[in-house]
Amino acid sequence: MAAPQFQGWLGKSPEAINGKMEWGSYEPKKWTEDDVDIEISHCGVCGSDLHMLKSGWKETPYPCVVGHEIVGKAIRVGSNVKHIQVGDRVGVGAQSRSCQSSDCVDCSVGNEVYCTNGLVDTYGAHFPNDEGKSYGGYADYNRVNGHWAFKIPEGLDSALAAPMLCGGITVYSPLRQNGCGPGKTVGIVGVGGLGHFAILFAKALGADRVVGISRKADKKADVLKLGADDYIATDDDKNWALKNRRSLDLIISTVSSSKMPLTEYLTLLKARGTYIQLGAPDGGVLPPINAFSLIINGIKIGGSLTGTPSEIREMLQLAADKKIKPWVEERPLKDANKVIVDMEEGKARFRYVLVNENFGKH
Amino acid sequence: MAAPQFQGWLGKSPEAINGKMEWGSYEPKKWTEDDVDIEISHCGVCGSDLHMLKSGWKETPYPCVVGHEIVGKAIRVGSNVKHIQVGDRVGVGAQSRSCQSSDCVDCSVGNEVYCTNGLVDTYGAHFPNDEGKSYGGYADYNRVNGHWAFKIPEGLDSALAAPMLCGGITVYSPLRQNGCGPGKTVGIVGVGGLGHFAILFAKALGADRVVGISRKADKKADVLKLGADDYIATDDDKNWALKNRRSLDLIISTVSSSKMPLTEYLTLLKARGTYIQLGAPDGGVLPPINAFSLIINGIKIGGSLTGTPSEIREMLQLAADKKIKPWVEERPLKDANKVIVDMEEGKARFRYVLVNENFGKH
Repeated sequence: MAAPQFQGWLGKSPEAINGKMEWGSYEPKKWTEDDVDIEISHCGVCGSDLHMLKSGWKETPYPCVVGHEIVGKAIRVGSNVKHIQVGDRVGVGAQSRSCQSSDCVDCSVGNEVYCTNGLVDTYGAHFPNDEGKSYGGYADYNRVNGHWAFKIPEGLDSALAAPMLCGGITVYSPLRQNGCGPGKTVGIVGVGGLGHFAILFAKALGADRVVGISRKADKKADVLKLGADDYIATDDDKNWALKNRRSLDLIISTVSSSKMPLTEYLTLLKARGTYIQLGAPDGGVLPPINAFSLIINGIKIGGSLTGTPSEIREMLQLAADKKIKPWVEERPLKDANKVIVDMEEGKARFRYVLVNENFGKH
Repeated sequence: MAAPQFQGWLGKSPEAINGKMEWGSYEPKKWTEDDVDIEISHCGVCGSDLHMLKSGWKETPYPCVVGHEIVGKAIRVGSNVKHIQVGDRVGVGAQSRSCQSSDCVDCSVGNEVYCTNGLVDTYGAHFPNDEGKSYGGYADYNRVNGHWAFKIPEGLDSALAAPMLCGGITVYSPLRQNGCGPGKTVGIVGVGGLGHFAILFAKALGADRVVGISRKADKKADVLKLGADDYIATDDDKNWALKNRRSLDLIISTVSSSKMPLTEYLTLLKARGTYIQLGAPDGGVLPPINAFSLIINGIKIGGSLTGTPSEIREMLQLAADKKIKPWVEERPLKDANKVIVDMEEGKARFRYVLVNENFGKH
């Protein structure tokens, strides 16, 4: 099949964040036989999309098409790609290529997402060898290295699979890496897009007890409805840290304010527990950490970036098998400008998914 | 057997650190049938002893007998203690009691060393139920709760076993907890008492590659002689961080200066690696930690406190089986005042062990 005509919602300046993306054509990366072209039916809306549109992290290489929670149909499959057939339903997450070299300390052990030899983000990045820029999923088509294209299992709706490809895997990977499962008690700090996935996956992985932790008491009903066993409202529950001290094996923190009560969160850990931070405060520096609090409790503080291809495949299969239902609101791709404004205003409960009017029926 | 007469080197004020301990009698904890009395043949000299003698952490409850790397002969065994017989060669480390309650979130899962319901340090602490104070091993006898008395395996010299009971286990536990073994590359920051044990144990546990990391190049020969495969001198090797980036799965840090190059140490970790801090800087607060450095590499920073009884037993058996030889200098107990001055001056290469002239032959 010949290359399709790539069109999508182009951000052309930081103004794009104010609902000023423009529909237009662009040149995808140069085709290679390692690639897959996808006709996009669904694309989740991720907080990273907003940061990139407004040059929130660094200067964005405009024009940029954001969106890295992509699901659609493979319409062209490079001859080197063996696990995908034309017509398959496939997904793409936040990365579109890694070096895959046997010399790479990361790729060679299955830590591809941490590859420092040419990992390419799904949008706003450049492929090596002058192959061109990466463009994301608020669009009709996506071109991705086959290693980073994942078959969507039967029984998992495209609209539900899409936001798992970044929002879901970002919490699934640290849950799995840190032993979430039977016998474990897990706390989820922040119950938004990422946090709601963390509650769903922690329960699906069989944790004994999952506790949602957020500021306000008024979120409690939703958190319990998601499947959490308990809820802590740090603004509204008196003595919440003392009452819940040494109760959690693992905390996944999806918040990133520099004012977050990190010291108190750490007191919730059992000895030898682990706290994983997924977001960075402004400026990046964590609140001060006392070495004694780490030593006398034998605890750890870590970070985590999305997940690896094998973890993504495992997550999607678990979601299909356990019939996991993220809370998703479908919105038409034509309304993308309105959707990002709603997302920026914090209206998502908990994830928007853009549906492409042209291809959204499969 | 009746209770022996307890005598030892008493610190009576912070002046004790200047070689002013005084030999004298003291009242041990009240005997219970959970206890073991030990005739002390050997006691290692630990940095903690110095801190306690000079009230370096907090006001020490003088008089105090320090020493928590104790080996000797069991001479009286409480009827509730089943694993030790009178005449056995036994050791005691930095803790002498934990609550052992089935309700304890720590003791019930084998994390006794993190028990917050009545863990008693081997010296300078108080037993619950008005049973009295704890006194350490610069002495003729020690009384300890049987759960914290460990049989020394055949083939392991008392003088070598003694310093393992705090110095050794403090590094052995985080090595084991964090997967040190075949396939792993391990860095040891600081090569003193703790660091030299870390190199010995990391090799004994089968790590593929063990790298000593210290400031000066002149330590290299000793570090390689200990069995390390490589050495990094952070003051003397140019571009040491860049040259060794992403090369280690695990770092055990035995240094605690607030000026330590923590950010550079972290760059030595491979993705998903772990850095364990064993000492706290003055004031306790770690150098600032950037969340991005944790997130984009998926790494963790943790702490660790000595080890659990099961880990201590395992370590002693490994030391016997693998014939591990720590670098120990035996000194007579009568010279304890001189020894602590030498220790404070940093002369130990790498551990002093006091030998009791009365009982030191067994």
